[in-house]
Amino acid sequence: MITPLQKARYEYAPKLPGMLRHGIADICVEEGDYTESVADQEKIKALFPLTYGKKEITFKKGTNTADAKKQVVGVILSGGQAPGGHNVVCGLYDALKAANGENVLYGFKNGPSGLLNDDFIEFDDEYINQFRNTGGFDIIGSGRTKLETKEQFAVAAEVCKKHGITAIVIIGGDDSNTNAAVLAEYFAQNNSGVQVIGCPKTIDGDLKNEDIECSFGFDTATKTYSELIGNIERDANSAKKYWHFIKVMGRSASHVALECALETQPNYCLISEEVAEKKMSFSQIADSIADSVAARAANGMNFGVAIIPEGVVEFVPEFAVLIHEINELLAGTKAEAFNALPTWAEKYAFIENGLTKESMEVFAILPQSIQQQLFLERDPHGNVQVSLIESEKLFSAMVKDKLEARRKEGKYNGKFNALHHFLGYEGRCAFPSNFDADYCYSLGYNAFMLIQYGYTGYLSKVSNLSKPAEEWVAGGMPITKMMNMERRHGEDKPVIKKALVDLNGKPFRYFEERRAQWAVETCYTYPGAIQYYGPTEVCDLTTKTLKLEKE
Amino acid sequence: MITPLQKARYEYAPKLPGMLRHGIADICVEEGDYTESVADQEKIKALFPLTYGKKEITFKKGTNTADAKKQVVGVILSGGQAPGGHNVVCGLYDALKAANGENVLYGFKNGPSGLLNDDFIEFDDEYINQFRNTGGFDIIGSGRTKLETKEQFAVAAEVCKKHGITAIVIIGGDDSNTNAAVLAEYFAQNNSGVQVIGCPKTIDGDLKNEDIECSFGFDTATKTYSELIGNIERDANSAKKYWHFIKVMGRSASHVALECALETQPNYCLISEEVAEKKMSFSQIADSIADSVAARAANGMNFGVAIIPEGVVEFVPEFAVLIHEINELLAGTKAEAFNALPTWAEKYAFIENGLTKESMEVFAILPQSIQQQLFLERDPHGNVQVSLIESEKLFSAMVKDKLEARRKEGKYNGKFNALHHFLGYEGRCAFPSNFDADYCYSLGYNAFMLIQYGYTGYLSKVSNLSKPAEEWVAGGMPITKMMNMERRHGEDKPVIKKALVDLNGKPFRYFEERRAQWAVETCYTYPGAIQYYGPTEVCDLTTKTLKLEKE
Repeated sequence: MITPLQKARYEYAPKLPGMLRHGIADICVEEGDYTESVADQEKIKALFPLTYGKKEITFKKGTNTADAKKQVVGVILSGGQAPGGHNVVCGLYDALKAANGENVLYGFKNGPSGLLNDDFIEFDDEYINQFRNTGGFDIIGSGRTKLETKEQFAVAAEVCKKHGITAIVIIGGDDSNTNAAVLAEYFAQNNSGVQVIGCPKTIDGDLKNEDIECSFGFDTATKTYSELIGNIERDANSAKKYWHFIKVMGRSASHVALECALETQPNYCLISEEVAEKKMSFSQIADSIADSVAARAANGMNFGVAIIPEGVVEFVPEFAVLIHEINELLAGTKAEAFNALPTWAEKYAFIENGLTKESMEVFAILPQSIQQQLFLERDPHGNVQVSLIESEKLFSAMVKDKLEARRKEGKYNGKFNALHHFLGYEGRCAFPSNFDADYCYSLGYNAFMLIQYGYTGYLSKVSNLSKPAEEWVAGGMPITKMMNMERRHGEDKPVIKKALVDLNGKPFRYFEERRAQWAVETCYTYPGAIQYYGPTEVCDLTTKTLKLEKE
Repeated sequence: MITPLQKARYEYAPKLPGMLRHGIADICVEEGDYTESVADQEKIKALFPLTYGKKEITFKKGTNTADAKKQVVGVILSGGQAPGGHNVVCGLYDALKAANGENVLYGFKNGPSGLLNDDFIEFDDEYINQFRNTGGFDIIGSGRTKLETKEQFAVAAEVCKKHGITAIVIIGGDDSNTNAAVLAEYFAQNNSGVQVIGCPKTIDGDLKNEDIECSFGFDTATKTYSELIGNIERDANSAKKYWHFIKVMGRSASHVALECALETQPNYCLISEEVAEKKMSFSQIADSIADSVAARAANGMNFGVAIIPEGVVEFVPEFAVLIHEINELLAGTKAEAFNALPTWAEKYAFIENGLTKESMEVFAILPQSIQQQLFLERDPHGNVQVSLIESEKLFSAMVKDKLEARRKEGKYNGKFNALHHFLGYEGRCAFPSNFDADYCYSLGYNAFMLIQYGYTGYLSKVSNLSKPAEEWVAGGMPITKMMNMERRHGEDKPVIKKALVDLNGKPFRYFEERRAQWAVETCYTYPGAIQYYGPTEVCDLTTKTLKLEKE
């Protein structure tokens, strides 16, 4: 059974960039300059001798000069879901079939492991048509296996050879695209003849650089979260009795939190990158939120909305030190002695004895539930599971303490009732917005053009995205151009640089200029549910982040 | 600043029932039969001597014969937010101004307390136009003060007299409409000349009977929750590694949970009324969920979605007994002895000693976090705060235990990773769906017609709602008709009977017939975000509950 919206979305015709609208036979390539990686050029060149430094390319209207050989392409969805993934596959399929009816598209199941396990399906019209313009990665499933070892590459080469595969398209985030580049180099060095093309996916928005204006899914996910935050704001402003602490997904970068703040104008939004830059302590953060609560209370408004990025606690310097000390304190067999202590009071004394004075001060201000979580819920290696920490509850508890202290000093006389929310899974599989539906379809279509023209180690690139789709620019960029060397697990690795929120960038500065007002007044804005039909100014908008960056 | 959708929604013209489309001068009344309350007729008649037993009325096209005297109407939003409340006010305002430009509409601020505090605003076009077709109750705020005592009524009469108020419209749930009827009777007995009209609001959907096909807000709220549940289902079916336990708002009745299940076809949905009817124990509930988990795991699907109604634990008979025993155990000064015990182990021994064997068995199967919550987080009267219990976590923890037991018996060999969600505040202030926008505007418009024709103690009634708005029927029904006597706080009170899910009704039976299949297979459906524009089959649908009930 399908829903009315799903049925209606099947009929939506995604918009391609103007230059890709003339049919495959009328798309030619314009090669640009040779490229260099953004840093560590020599090291990266040495690691990618055959795929480094290639030219940027752009497609244009013109006679197609590509080799029309039969293509057998395999596509992989890697990592967390992002709205629009299905449309990448559909765009790839449509271009591939339009080029040559004999071309074949395979979908490897449940992520990169599908390639290693030789587990795939072959797409046909009937199957693919069920997934057009829909959310989710259920078309073939996704997975988190990393394709990064020589042994895996050898298996992949074997599977490709067995089925005559000519190209692999990997749809994933920064790590997956890094691995796509490494695989491309491997295939090139082994003369396998298999090309590899990457597509930039992640709702986190941290796969972004000079060449990638935004990763797909960010638009739809942030619109879904903003819908809900706006609804909660309206509820807060109607009931006038709750402070809502809303955690939004995004493990490291705060692009999601920032975009949601730009869309909904809450009273407070924490930005992890700013916390790190200013070396903010928990106490400082709690005070800055309490300032908003107190100022609003003084104006009779005992309600508000604060946005908390999922990964923020890891950006608090004193907390990072505390976590390190806890991991040391319980390393190896020391955990046994700790676990043997029968009561929390005895455990607490053990902790007090084991931590430095500075870390103990940080530990002491945490609510007991979080204190216990840090010690009792550790991963199989005995490490603290930072991702499980309910930071929205942590901050609201600390704010409450701050307010009580101010009350005693006669500086606060309001009411503070907090409610907590976490927005994450609710937005990763929404029906893609028109923007994501168009962008993803274009990425997939364009990926095939790169395959047909023989490129490998390239990222499917569609840019000029703040303009109508007609004006979008389609082409490709060597993935190595986006790379630098970083220390990962004790080794120097070539990786795509993750894009954190730029504190000098326009989106953050726009927020920074207005947040003092938002903190005190009620400036909420209500984006409402994503609209796929209706006035173009409602249903064809992209993010405020992209708009500000491109202004 | 307003969003593009908000701007576009201002332009939306809500659809009135056909019979109200000819202009105020062409609306006449058709009186139907005298009415009787649904039960306890004599008692209710004695309590409402002047307003009991009045005739049902319907509006039709025809010459308006009402007295055209100047009307000064006060409107009140009572209780929890529900999408569409603003449109009730707008419909009321438009009818009132269309009838006579000198008519006045006041909005009492922050709920019924606004009437008691003489705190209101006067609406004009400029102000009201900012709220057309928007969500929330922020137009005047809402509140939970109950208008129920003689002293309050006397104050209300005073305020009405002071401002020449001729009628009060109360927009609220079952309790608020009960109180509207009592206030109407009071005003009638005191010859105040003030009429009272109620409008049926609540996202819970439990204000429903022979006369009220549905309360407003239920449509939009369940569509919003279903959007999110569908997105989560799609995520589950893509990642294939999590069971999502999703609690949905609704303190007593399970209409919201049932409607969401009909819209999204999850693997499991608990219905509180069934739990009560079948006297299900926690163990039985956990087993029934574990059956679905195990059956899916046997088919290689270690993922799923279960919907849990917010208020379900209160419907589990053994739990109600446990709560009663805990309240007794800690009543009065006994709590001090308990609180003085230094460790949880000693507290646990105290509990073990104090509960009956049966209740102790129930207590013992609860996860420790819930056990502690029951004893440590009590309200100012020392009572357990059942509403704070995270029932979604309670059930997933019990299911996990069941699965581990089955694993030991060799009956289960899957993986079970649970994630938890609570959907509530996210949906109460969404932009009303076209259905709720139309229905609410009609309720408000119609409420004015009841006022103009001199009715009091009536509920604004719009029916035939499963048909297009053109065919809707507008009229009024004495609120006393919906009443029976119930025991409340040790007293017999006349109240509107709350509508629980009817286990013999079509919506539940539809669910019951299909749930065995949904439990094992993946039959998810993805409703997507509410659409306000586009194909009528997408944007003018109401709930499956209403459709099935009216079929």
